[in-house]
Amino acid sequence: MHLADEYRALKDAGRRDLGGVAVRNLLVLMTEQSHLFLRSAETKPLKSRVLDKSYVAFALGNKISRAVNAALFISDPAELAASLTAFADGSLARANPIGIQRTLYTLTMSFCAANDLWKVGDKKTPATYFEFLIGHLFAERLGVNPRKWIPVPGEARSSLPTDYIFELGPRRANFHLPVKLSTRERVIQAWAHQRVIDGIYGVKTYRGCLVVLAETKLDQKTLEVVEICLPLQWRVYQKYIAELWRIYYIDPPARYADLAGVKPIGVLYDELD
Amino acid sequence: MHLADEYRALKDAGRRDLGGVAVRNLLVLMTEQSHLFLRSAETKPLKSRVLDKSYVAFALGNKISRAVNAALFISDPAELAASLTAFADGSLARANPIGIQRTLYTLTMSFCAANDLWKVGDKKTPATYFEFLIGHLFAERLGVNPRKWIPVPGEARSSLPTDYIFELGPRRANFHLPVKLSTRERVIQAWAHQRVIDGIYGVKTYRGCLVVLAETKLDQKTLEVVEICLPLQWRVYQKYIAELWRIYYIDPPARYADLAGVKPIGVLYDELD
Repeated sequence: MHLADEYRALKDAGRRDLGGVAVRNLLVLMTEQSHLFLRSAETKPLKSRVLDKSYVAFALGNKISRAVNAALFISDPAELAASLTAFADGSLARANPIGIQRTLYTLTMSFCAANDLWKVGDKKTPATYFEFLIGHLFAERLGVNPRKWIPVPGEARSSLPTDYIFELGPRRANFHLPVKLSTRERVIQAWAHQRVIDGIYGVKTYRGCLVVLAETKLDQKTLEVVEICLPLQWRVYQKYIAELWRIYYIDPPARYADLAGVKPIGVLYDELD
Repeated sequence: MHLADEYRALKDAGRRDLGGVAVRNLLVLMTEQSHLFLRSAETKPLKSRVLDKSYVAFALGNKISRAVNAALFISDPAELAASLTAFADGSLARANPIGIQRTLYTLTMSFCAANDLWKVGDKKTPATYFEFLIGHLFAERLGVNPRKWIPVPGEARSSLPTDYIFELGPRRANFHLPVKLSTRERVIQAWAHQRVIDGIYGVKTYRGCLVVLAETKLDQKTLEVVEICLPLQWRVYQKYIAELWRIYYIDPPARYADLAGVKPIGVLYDELD
């Protein structure tokens, strides 16, 4: 089966049962296939302008993938197989934070980089894939599938489209889960939606939990990689729009390490439990 | 001078003195040139799915422009010349609302449609042009040039980038002016920024004033035109994020007519005075 078909299957399975085993198996299969494809491509070192991080890109003909953090991407097939097994059988939750981080990074980046070279789908495809991956993780762990809307009081038969909303019932936390490959200007939407949710349901009813892959930007001409960070804007959004409970990064920028709520993805399982 | 050079000149002049005569003259010149260019293109009727509105597009070879509202676009060169004279000498402010509306629509759409066919600049170019046009209108009328940032209290040497901010001094209104060719999902940013501004300075210190061209969408294959409207979402944003004082439309969708604050652009001069 071709990656594009699997992507369609993933969307179908995700709509039926996001936390289910069919989604998990498709994520594993798509990662294996993407990884196999990337191994046939050339690996190009990039010029890192980010302290203590080095990056590569995959290249095929005149096409080049996005920047891949060399320390987080699992390139060895045997190590990948072991990581995917742990992801598939659920034992990943008990791995160390670095292992969790590298596995989730590779699950995301294999498909994204393959899509850059192979054009499985349009620009939106990698973002949607990542949303399914993170949505699956939460759904599986929390034992409940999400909605993507909230009802609006006082408006008959009306709902507001949102990112994932997880409702766990009485005495347990609910979650509002925006998922982004990187933030840039659009991220203000996550805080604005949290504000609407807080306004309708009261603050702390839904924990806002933003999950981001990385803030990496590759200049295709110079092959330089930078991280684009706006810590001041984030503090302003947290203070004046709404408070997000957590911002999980798969590849956390060092400049965000001091911001309240920012955590590496490796602690996710512990925090959800 | 080519349109691309004028566009660069517009950006330079706009940064120096947005409300000044140099900007106004460039807007007039660019409209004249764009209009002349469009007259050499083919005019294609489109299938309108919008009640009481009919649309055309300009076509050249296999390229087609965005949808143009036939009733609002001034196609007659003599009428255009008179309208541009009124815009240039300031007498447009005393014209009737329909005249104001058609003049501003044509000032916007001539360049945008020409850019679609002629590729003066990238996708962002028409949006920036429209921002300059509306920014100029406010700056000229209010007698003050805007900033594009607000200082953030408690953060040394820090500012938050925003849309236009007009400060008129004591006893007069201040304005926060987001400008968009159409809204779609990104528009939530206008409300989120208003929330931050209200939070820092107190509500009603800056009047939020969103200016939008239209909500038209053209299907390039079927040549059908629809208007994409989300009145429920707008009500939710107004209620739970922040209140925008006005939402001015150059080509107002009928479905937004009932929303509080929504006005046709024709009343703008009266309201600002």
